[in-house]
Amino acid sequence: MASDKPPLRLGLIGTGFMGKTHVFGFTTAQRVFDLPFEIVLHAIADRTEALAADAARTLGFEKSSGDWRALVADPEIDLIDITAPNAFHKEMALAAIAAGKHVYCEKPLAPSAQDARTMAEAAEKAGVKTQVGFNYLCNPMLGLARELIAGGELGEIRSYRGVHAEDYMADADGPFTFRHDPAGGGALADIGSHALATAEYLLGPISAVTGECITVIGERPDGRGGRRSVEVDDIGRAFLRFASRATGCIEANWIAMGRKMQHDFEVYGSKGALVFSQERFNELHFYSAADPSGRRGFRRIEAGPDHEPYGLFCVAPGHQLGFNDLKAIEAARFLEAIAGRRPEPFGFRAGQRVQELVEAIQRSSREGVRVRVG
Amino acid sequence: MASDKPPLRLGLIGTGFMGKTHVFGFTTAQRVFDLPFEIVLHAIADRTEALAADAARTLGFEKSSGDWRALVADPEIDLIDITAPNAFHKEMALAAIAAGKHVYCEKPLAPSAQDARTMAEAAEKAGVKTQVGFNYLCNPMLGLARELIAGGELGEIRSYRGVHAEDYMADADGPFTFRHDPAGGGALADIGSHALATAEYLLGPISAVTGECITVIGERPDGRGGRRSVEVDDIGRAFLRFASRATGCIEANWIAMGRKMQHDFEVYGSKGALVFSQERFNELHFYSAADPSGRRGFRRIEAGPDHEPYGLFCVAPGHQLGFNDLKAIEAARFLEAIAGRRPEPFGFRAGQRVQELVEAIQRSSREGVRVRVG
Amino acid sequence: MASDKPPLRLGLIGTGFMGKTHVFGFTTAQRVFDLPFEIVLHAIADRTEALAADAARTLGFEKSSGDWRALVADPEIDLIDITAPNAFHKEMALAAIAAGKHVYCEKPLAPSAQDARTMAEAAEKAGVKTQVGFNYLCNPMLGLARELIAGGELGEIRSYRGVHAEDYMADADGPFTFRHDPAGGGALADIGSHALATAEYLLGPISAVTGECITVIGERPDGRGGRRSVEVDDIGRAFLRFASRATGCIEANWIAMGRKMQHDFEVYGSKGALVFSQERFNELHFYSAADPSGRRGFRRIEAGPDHEPYGLFCVAPGHQLGFNDLKAIEAARFLEAIAGRRPEPFGFRAGQRVQELVEAIQRSSREGVRVRVG
Amino acid sequence: MASDKPPLRLGLIGTGFMGKTHVFGFTTAQRVFDLPFEIVLHAIADRTEALAADAARTLGFEKSSGDWRALVADPEIDLIDITAPNAFHKEMALAAIAAGKHVYCEKPLAPSAQDARTMAEAAEKAGVKTQVGFNYLCNPMLGLARELIAGGELGEIRSYRGVHAEDYMADADGPFTFRHDPAGGGALADIGSHALATAEYLLGPISAVTGECITVIGERPDGRGGRRSVEVDDIGRAFLRFASRATGCIEANWIAMGRKMQHDFEVYGSKGALVFSQERFNELHFYSAADPSGRRGFRRIEAGPDHEPYGLFCVAPGHQLGFNDLKAIEAARFLEAIAGRRPEPFGFRAGQRVQELVEAIQRSSREGVRVRVG
Repeated sequence: MASDKPPLRLGLIGTGFMGKTHVFGFTTAQRVFDLPFEIVLHAIADRTEALAADAARTLGFEKSSGDWRALVADPEIDLIDITAPNAFHKEMALAAIAAGKHVYCEKPLAPSAQDARTMAEAAEKAGVKTQVGFNYLCNPMLGLARELIAGGELGEIRSYRGVHAEDYMADADGPFTFRHDPAGGGALADIGSHALATAEYLLGPISAVTGECITVIGERPDGRGGRRSVEVDDIGRAFLRFASRATGCIEANWIAMGRKMQHDFEVYGSKGALVFSQERFNELHFYSAADPSGRRGFRRIEAGPDHEPYGLFCVAPGHQLGFNDLKAIEAARFLEAIAGRRPEPFGFRAGQRVQELVEAIQRSSREGVRVRVG
Repeated sequence: MASDKPPLRLGLIGTGFMGKTHVFGFTTAQRVFDLPFEIVLHAIADRTEALAADAARTLGFEKSSGDWRALVADPEIDLIDITAPNAFHKEMALAAIAAGKHVYCEKPLAPSAQDARTMAEAAEKAGVKTQVGFNYLCNPMLGLARELIAGGELGEIRSYRGVHAEDYMADADGPFTFRHDPAGGGALADIGSHALATAEYLLGPISAVTGECITVIGERPDGRGGRRSVEVDDIGRAFLRFASRATGCIEANWIAMGRKMQHDFEVYGSKGALVFSQERFNELHFYSAADPSGRRGFRRIEAGPDHEPYGLFCVAPGHQLGFNDLKAIEAARFLEAIAGRRPEPFGFRAGQRVQELVEAIQRSSREGVRVRVG
Repeated sequence: MASDKPPLRLGLIGTGFMGKTHVFGFTTAQRVFDLPFEIVLHAIADRTEALAADAARTLGFEKSSGDWRALVADPEIDLIDITAPNAFHKEMALAAIAAGKHVYCEKPLAPSAQDARTMAEAAEKAGVKTQVGFNYLCNPMLGLARELIAGGELGEIRSYRGVHAEDYMADADGPFTFRHDPAGGGALADIGSHALATAEYLLGPISAVTGECITVIGERPDGRGGRRSVEVDDIGRAFLRFASRATGCIEANWIAMGRKMQHDFEVYGSKGALVFSQERFNELHFYSAADPSGRRGFRRIEAGPDHEPYGLFCVAPGHQLGFNDLKAIEAARFLEAIAGRRPEPFGFRAGQRVQELVEAIQRSSREGVRVRVG
Repeated sequence: MASDKPPLRLGLIGTGFMGKTHVFGFTTAQRVFDLPFEIVLHAIADRTEALAADAARTLGFEKSSGDWRALVADPEIDLIDITAPNAFHKEMALAAIAAGKHVYCEKPLAPSAQDARTMAEAAEKAGVKTQVGFNYLCNPMLGLARELIAGGELGEIRSYRGVHAEDYMADADGPFTFRHDPAGGGALADIGSHALATAEYLLGPISAVTGECITVIGERPDGRGGRRSVEVDDIGRAFLRFASRATGCIEANWIAMGRKMQHDFEVYGSKGALVFSQERFNELHFYSAADPSGRRGFRRIEAGPDHEPYGLFCVAPGHQLGFNDLKAIEAARFLEAIAGRRPEPFGFRAGQRVQELVEAIQRSSREGVRVRVG
């Protein structure tokens, strides 16, 4: 039974971890949501023909190419999805935009806010839709957190503590990679971007930052038997001032031994508080000062159909979504934005914004002063 | 680029919660695993043409029917997947088996162990493969638990505590449903089956049970303005004796207010222990008496690529699988069994076995004696 | 400044772990509570003069003796506190009662319910006050749990799960001790007594039990180079029926590797639930079905001044009581009972009751039938 | 039986929360530890004769006075213990030191580091021993944390996250108190001092700080019907640089709604990590990268006799110490220092040090620059 929906032909650049995750996301979104389009896995590209052909077979794409430009040039493709290394994002995205295609790009969007702005402006001028992969924000429990805050259930928000810590760079003998490149690399850019996006998602715009960026592992194997100096931060910290007058702090840390996914936050208001950990991302802990005396405490709310769009995945509460399900929500929201059903949830402007915050923190750290952000 | 894999054409009966979950499972399995087949969503059936056609469109099936027999009769279909209400399982499965099709059936397999045996024998005689939906056993952390036990890391296993508690029947004004039918209904059959399957998955065969089955909500609305008496158990408990000489207990409880997915167990051995909760099913807590003095404690192991097949879903640890991912693993394993790559993980014999345990516990409760199981 | 309170002269028998704990309890109670008496650490006895003298010096007693009968005979002593091994409890208590003294005795009170009854009757006849050491019941959070249940905040109570598991007997090479003596020994008597006392404290009288007592480590070193057969249970389990029509189960397990203090319970009612673990005994987790939709969850209530008598120990919540503080509450309550300010919280009748439950479970296990308790 | 130990006569100034806690601490220490002295509760002072006399009776002191100078002048008193409001600490301590007495003083020691230095110098010159009440550092689990770090079990320490958050000032209608006085008040001085002390206890000296101090509730009721402006911080945050080259951050927050005792830290090293929360202060979570692959995780170590001096309180693990027990350990350590058995664990120099850190953070916040500390 052929779908009566218009097709949306996908061209995916990159076949690694994130490339696969995107395919999982689109595939699941197709089944779980009533999407405006029928997604077609049209073409996939990687550095070589062989890599791309292999991925096409595994992942179910119709065509493959060793040259990403072939996808951009393919008139049948509606959406270019970029999961290649960060350094290529700008060139690929601008080419795709120039070809009139919608663009979905993994984060960090670009090595500099200036580049990100260029990309966002190009997209706006071309009238195409864009998205950056802030999957953590697609968690129904973050939606609940925002709803609790926006609805006043926490009262006036006073303070915020956020962290994104993992240990994938904890091994001092791990090699120098593109993530260590001064142009756009470092823990703050790589994962601090998530912590910053979450902070603004929940509390609104940040107005000033004071940063401290620390390089702990000063050199790493260069892959050619030598050592290469590392200048990017392993740990980035910032004090945050929000336009709302709330204040807070965040930490990005990619050498936090033992941590696999500590994307956590705590929000304190005049009437309540929230505590969240991505390590158990199907839960949100909510304290309400309105509970009766002697009965107050952080309550562990488990994700369920009350927290949309959980119910589309499972009608029963407590069954839990997985990481790839968050990617499916992300993909679905982008398609809805492409169809004009909703605004872009995290367009290139959002990627630009986060990069501006990252750079403000880096500058604050370098110059030893507080930096205002627009 | 067409797949070079042989197609496996699916005929799905049932379009509700579990029907959707199965489609999600197959769809995800197709992308995540290197399956032996190309899954084709061939046909779907429900009680009416309209329901089926609607589901076909939403879920992406090629054909639909208001009569499940049409699927059984369809020579193109390789696999019949039954997610209809329990009372139909036997008739549907036997018809599918008679038509030479592999059969995947949600649990409980049949209202009686005798029926389940009939179904298993028919399948064996026909040479088709079967599977019952014990998705909790597909969790990589349960695989890790079994590996720790089998590898002797806990020493000799001495005791077991299991529970499966939810609250979906906690409301005394909830209506009488097929799950309250004395033929196969009750908490023990509905979810105690999971607790029993997990117990045997980890510790091997149970040899004797002592049961206590309790009806708490003695009558429920009959949907026609009256009340209908309920005879099945709301809570089923059992002492277990294992062939290994370990002992334990389990509880099934579908009126456990506040519990959404308490499928939990604790295993105690002479050298270590395990604690698990389905409420946080991407974690396993492991105590090793071999740890140094003053440094011992339950360690919270987070699921990651070390725990197969997690790595196929995500290369990074701590990102977490969701409920639908467990369904994908379940689907993949069945397809591998159909291809002869591995034995059936939970064939109809497994469904029969669990039903035998359920009935032994029910009999023990009725007769007030310990009951041996073969 | 001399106290204007009447003195209460203590005679303590036993100088081990529990003897010290009692002294800590009385000493702290003296400072924390406005007790009706000035406690005087008058005399202490142990098996030898030397042991007793040493303990007197360390613990601050005025006198010491190698013969417990000297304490019973001492007309100045008001209260005999028995922390000697279980086998001596009866003889000591009866002698103390005969001498007109109040008696505080560690649990288990006596090796048999019959003995316990004899002791309770003697005390009642003599008009002295008695207490058995059920310290876990002195936790303010258990008081809160009882208040929530009694006040109807959980609705009709439907089910109960209790456990008391530790690992102090997990080592199969640990020697045979008085706790392995068939007269009164075993996990069920030793720690299952706590689980049973808590169950009745919260849900009221148990009316019937079905038991299963398991010996896992069948022989132990006898301390003289040989092995001695063990007949008592390492694990005791019971299904419970309460007079209220609630049902439940408990487990006592002293070979639960890794567990140090798993005195836990879960209570499920028609409107809410409670979850408690002695491992974190300053918390009680409370689920209320009355919370708004999408906001429900188990809330972690931390002990504070709202939960009396916490406030006497500390005016600020969240600071936490320790095990010895529970002992102080226990001691204070006994002194208040002696002064006639309140009924005995856990008199010898309570000790008798628990022993009756233990014996009913043991008999049920032996005979394979459900046993009613009065 | 009279003690053969020399008496140590205590003069306590202050009868409130902390005064009582000190008495509990000394009383418990006397029973639990083999102290070098027999503690005598000699005299207690408060603002009025009546208050003091009442406290003497309740707490068991021999004498009382409405004038703290009477205690300082009393030649029998060996140790002056100051739990009066912060503003009096300096005058009282200097007088006591001048009278040749040892001094125990609650924190914060003085409103300024300069005052604290004066006090410390006076004590050193007079040859008396001093102590400031850093009770959290007396927790056996903090001892374990320090041992794990010092022993290299975490490898090179790379980063630290600390917080001390409570909600006792969260109510904007709570009155202006001495804690809001610009001379020594604010969250950073009041509880941030704990966070700073813990950070240096574990990682050694801090060498530089960058601070941010935030006033959230800008005015409070003045107790006379009006409002009074508040200038001290409700939230104080700091980036920390340690002499060891590790870096970190801390937050002090006394308006963190829902938090009662969030004195938490996380330590990340090259080989492992620690996570601790005072909310569950009998546990330490330890991750060791040396655990086998697939078996790694944060292990929850429960306090027990392996972690001295826990074993003096209880011979069995998992029974848990309470807040007052930490005070007893603190008292015992001071008496041991007085007897010359060990160095002063937290003498006035430690109080001065913490105040220097507080002031450096405040200055950094005011001036917007990083501040080095000696």
